[in-house]
Amino acid sequence: MLLMIPGPVQLHERIINSMCRQMISHRGAEFSKILKYCMDALKPIFGLKNGEVLLISGSGTAGVEAAISSFSKVKKILTIENGKFGERIGEIASKYCETKRLEFEWGRPVDLGEVEKAIKDCDAVAFVHNETSTGMLNPAEEIAKIAKENNALVIMDAITSAGGDYVKMDEWGIDVAVVGSQKCLGAPPGLAAVAVNERAWEYYNKKCPYYLDLAAYKKKLKELQTPYTPAVPLFFALEEALKIIEEEGLENRIRRHIILNSAVREWALAAGLELFPQPDGHSKYSNTLTAINLPKGVSDSDLRNTLRKEYGITISGGQDAVKGKIFRIAAMGNVGKLEVLSTIAAVEDVLSRFTKIESAIDVATKVLRDLK
Amino acid sequence: MLLMIPGPVQLHERIINSMCRQMISHRGAEFSKILKYCMDALKPIFGLKNGEVLLISGSGTAGVEAAISSFSKVKKILTIENGKFGERIGEIASKYCETKRLEFEWGRPVDLGEVEKAIKDCDAVAFVHNETSTGMLNPAEEIAKIAKENNALVIMDAITSAGGDYVKMDEWGIDVAVVGSQKCLGAPPGLAAVAVNERAWEYYNKKCPYYLDLAAYKKKLKELQTPYTPAVPLFFALEEALKIIEEEGLENRIRRHIILNSAVREWALAAGLELFPQPDGHSKYSNTLTAINLPKGVSDSDLRNTLRKEYGITISGGQDAVKGKIFRIAAMGNVGKLEVLSTIAAVEDVLSRFTKIESAIDVATKVLRDLK
Repeated sequence: MLLMIPGPVQLHERIINSMCRQMISHRGAEFSKILKYCMDALKPIFGLKNGEVLLISGSGTAGVEAAISSFSKVKKILTIENGKFGERIGEIASKYCETKRLEFEWGRPVDLGEVEKAIKDCDAVAFVHNETSTGMLNPAEEIAKIAKENNALVIMDAITSAGGDYVKMDEWGIDVAVVGSQKCLGAPPGLAAVAVNERAWEYYNKKCPYYLDLAAYKKKLKELQTPYTPAVPLFFALEEALKIIEEEGLENRIRRHIILNSAVREWALAAGLELFPQPDGHSKYSNTLTAINLPKGVSDSDLRNTLRKEYGITISGGQDAVKGKIFRIAAMGNVGKLEVLSTIAAVEDVLSRFTKIESAIDVATKVLRDLK
Repeated sequence: MLLMIPGPVQLHERIINSMCRQMISHRGAEFSKILKYCMDALKPIFGLKNGEVLLISGSGTAGVEAAISSFSKVKKILTIENGKFGERIGEIASKYCETKRLEFEWGRPVDLGEVEKAIKDCDAVAFVHNETSTGMLNPAEEIAKIAKENNALVIMDAITSAGGDYVKMDEWGIDVAVVGSQKCLGAPPGLAAVAVNERAWEYYNKKCPYYLDLAAYKKKLKELQTPYTPAVPLFFALEEALKIIEEEGLENRIRRHIILNSAVREWALAAGLELFPQPDGHSKYSNTLTAINLPKGVSDSDLRNTLRKEYGITISGGQDAVKGKIFRIAAMGNVGKLEVLSTIAAVEDVLSRFTKIESAIDVATKVLRDLK
C-alpha cells in the first residue's frame, strides 16, 4: 500500500517505530525536551528567527483557526481565495472579524493587482501558500510585500508547503504561518504548528476560542509545556520526523520535493494530459502536489479504484467543485523516486485502458536523474 | 516507569503496538470502519442509546469547548464549579453565552439546594462529573434531575469518569457528555469524544468555533468520516483500547476501578493520612483518583521527586490553589493490583522518611482481594 495523497503521507519506518512507546507524563522533563526540540527544529523550516512556534494537538484547520482567531484584533481582514483551503480561511475569518473575501476561480492565479486594490481598507490579510485542492503555489512573497506596504498583518497557511518548499517568514514579511504534521514534515496527522513573530501579538484578541488561544500556548511555553494535554505519541513521531529533516538538510529536502513533483508534472504533460492549475508566473505550479484534469472517458472511480485495487496506490480525487474532474498526486514527506515512478507508471497503465495516452515514463526518469 | 496520574495513563502493550502501523487514508473504507467501531463501542460507555458519539482530534478541553459552544443557543447557562475543571467549564461557557457561575470551595461538595435555586432562570447547566483536581465525584444524577425539572439542557464533563465509572446519559437525563481518550478508556491522549442525544440539537449554535462545530462532525458522519483530518494513529489506539474494554466487560471494568481506588483510599485512611475532598453523601469520593493532603513536614518535591527517582513512579501534585498541599494517585485505564500496590508501598516508604506514618499495606491488600 502506498499513499500519494496530500496527507496523511506515507510514514518513514523510523517514525512508525517512534510511536511504539509507553506514555510519559506531559508535565515532566522528558516531554519538555521533546517539545523544545520540535519548536527549535521547526523555526528554520518556517524561516523564523525571533518568535515562537506553538504546537497544537489538532488538525491543520485547528492551527489556521488558532492563528486567525488569536490575531483577530483587526478592523478588516482580506482573505485571498482560489481553492478549497482559501475558502476555508474566508469562512473561519468571517467568524471572528469583518472579512473581505477576494475570490478567484479554483485553479486560477491570484491577481496581484486585485490584491493591491482590495487591501486598501484592510489591516490584515490571510491566504494559502500551497493550495492542494488545485495544485497551485500562491505568490506568498508578493502578497506579503503588498501587505507590508499597507502595514497589514500577514497570516499564511503553509500547511502543505513548510518542510517541502521554501517558507521564509522573516525574509518575506509573514507574521503568522501554520503547518500540519502530516504533510511535508512527514509525520502522522494530529498536530499543527503555528509560527508567530513578535509583531503579531499587537493583534492579539482574547475573544478567540479557549482551546485555540495562542496566548495560553505562549504562556505555558515558559515552563516548556502545553496548556492542555498534548497528543504525546504524535510528539514522539514529530520529533523523529524533524530529526530526519535535520539529517537530510532542509535545502536538500526542498530540492527533492521540487524534483519529485516536477517529474510528475513533466510526465503528465508528455503523456498528453492537462494540468488543472493555470499559473501566471507569480502563482506557480505547486512543488508538493500535481493536479491533473481527468481525461475524457475516464471517471474518478475508473482511475482511483483500479489503482487502489490493482496496485495498492492511493491518490486523491478532486474536492467539492472539481470532484470527478481532476486527480491529484502528492509527493510529500519522505517518499522518493521509487514511489513517484511506480505511481505514475501505474496511473499511466490504468488511464491507458480507458483513453489514449502517450507512454512518458522516460520523461520522468530523466527529471529524476537530478536526484542523486 | 509507571504513570499513576489522571492521564496520560499507562498504556496496555496491545495499545502501544496498535500505533506501530503505516498510515492509511482518512477518506478510505478502512478508516471509516475504525471510526464506526469507536463510536458504537463508546455509546454504552456513555449509557446513550439514541444519538451520536462525535470524535474530535484534540484534548478533553477541546471536547468540552465543542460541547458547550455548539450547544450555546441558551438564554443563560449555570456552571457548577468545585475544582479546576469546573472552573474551566465556567471560563469556556463565558465565551459563548451568559453564564451564572455557582462556585464552591475546591474539594467541597456541590450543594444541591444551591443548584436548585440557581437554576431557576437558566435553561442549561454544565458541570464536571469526576473532578480530578480534588478527587470528588459530583452528583450527576441529582444535578440532572434538578435540571430536567427546570427543562434545562445538561452538559457533563465525563472526561475522567466514562470507562471507569458509571455514566448513564439516558437514565440520568444527560444531553451531552465528553470523555478524553487518555483517562479511564486507557488510550493515549489526543482524542475527545462528545456524546450527544437528539434533544441537544435544539440548542445548536452555529457561532461555535469552526474546528469545534459539532454539526460539521455530525454531517460528515453520514459518510463515516471526520470533517478535518483525524489523528489516525490515535484512532488505531482508541480502537484497540475499546476492544480491551469490550473483552473485560464494562461492568467488570467499573468494578475494578472502584476496588482499586478504594484500596488507595482505605490505605490512606489507615495510614493516618487525610483525604482532601469532603463528600456529603451526594458528592462522593472519586472512583478513579484519590486526592490526599500532604502531611506536615513533607513537601511536594520531597514526595514526588523521590518517588520518581527511586521508584520510577509518577503521581500528581496539586494544581493551582492546592499546589504543594495535596498529592493525587490515579488508578485509571488498564492498571491493576500490581500497580496500585507498588505505588502505595512506595509512597508509604517515601512519606515515612519525612513524617510518622502507619504501615497499612495490609488494609489495601484486603480490599484488593475482592478483585479476582
